Amino acid sequence: MTPQLQLALDSTSDAAFVILRQALSFVDIIEIGTPLIYREGVAMVRHVKEAYPDHPVLADLKIMDAGEEEAAIAFEGGADYVTVLGLAADSTVRGAVKSARRFGGKIMADMIQTERPLERGVELLALGCDVLCIHTGYDLQAEHSPLATFQVMRAHLPDALLAVAGGINRSTIGDLLPYHPSIVVVGGAITRAEDPAQAAQALKEKLV
Amino acid sequence: MTPQLQLALDSTSDAAFVILRQALSFVDIIEIGTPLIYREGVAMVRHVKEAYPDHPVLADLKIMDAGEEEAAIAFEGGADYVTVLGLAADSTVRGAVKSARRFGGKIMADMIQTERPLERGVELLALGCDVLCIHTGYDLQAEHSPLATFQVMRAHLPDALLAVAGGINRSTIGDLLPYHPSIVVVGGAITRAEDPAQAAQALKEKLV
Repeated sequence: MTPQLQLALDSTSDAAFVILRQALSFVDIIEIGTPLIYREGVAMVRHVKEAYPDHPVLADLKIMDAGEEEAAIAFEGGADYVTVLGLAADSTVRGAVKSARRFGGKIMADMIQTERPLERGVELLALGCDVLCIHTGYDLQAEHSPLATFQVMRAHLPDALLAVAGGINRSTIGDLLPYHPSIVVVGGAITRAEDPAQAAQALKEKLV
Repeated sequence: MTPQLQLALDSTSDAAFVILRQALSFVDIIEIGTPLIYREGVAMVRHVKEAYPDHPVLADLKIMDAGEEEAAIAFEGGADYVTVLGLAADSTVRGAVKSARRFGGKIMADMIQTERPLERGVELLALGCDVLCIHTGYDLQAEHSPLATFQVMRAHLPDALLAVAGGINRSTIGDLLPYHPSIVVVGGAITRAEDPAQAAQALKEKLV
């Protein structure tokens, strides 16, 4: 299956819409990033979904508690995907999954900082998570890439939906492709490019 | 030192302001809870701070990544305290602390789901966190209370600012007091009380 390109939008509402207008035709999933959720709340999810109803929208809440209630806030706002932290308690993950089933949405488990990601990943899939996201946080991207962990996860979970995130750009995306990512999350390499449309197109072309 | 009462507001903006009008005189710190941040964004922090400029406001972002950038969003919105997850990478915690120092604000580390909370708590204080919050998540409150962990933390950190959160109510608050919490966080026991003002007053009177 061709990997999907997920565009993470992290700055302001105005900047996000400018980028979306330019780059959308190369993007499969629109991510409303955590900083944008903090700034605008789920109104941002609603506005993006209203503007682009045919595109799946992911709300990067990184839920850590009150899984059912918090996921519902984003699904009610129109999100198709909501993220929960892999580090959250099983009961929190179960709650988020329950909310997803109710709204016809999906849960992506963000594996950021999760020790033993393979073991926890297997548990998260059993709890009903739809996608696991192998994610090197922004604050660690200078030191690490998600590649090594992604290789291990894919080797043991050949059929799972696995996303990958963390500083991915035009020069590193190729290293991931042999391991069949289901979703490749890109932020700054598109949003901070001089020409976001051209950057998105170049990344998308590597995926197909 | 007399423990401070922190009121966690988790529902809608309108409901939060109704409760604040009733209960504010018994409250030391106003918490804009994570669900309310998801719903309204930091606009909610700004609105509460504008309405009650003399009260410290805590933005419960539960930051997991991009510590400096995400904390700044809340501090720019007027927050006095911002929460970071104890599970976040050291570099993320350092970034949040750096942001706090720049804005004259404070960082509370939320110890939810943190294994070895004492060991991690010592690290978080060394990284510059101002307060540690021993927190049993909403999704686990039926099974656990934060009391046992709080006792251990206080025994080993007699002078640290330690907050406690997780299903605390009028009948359980007394068990915590011998261990000198610096801040007691209460949500539902006030916000879902028939008479929130009376509930807040009863809790506050136990603290003085």
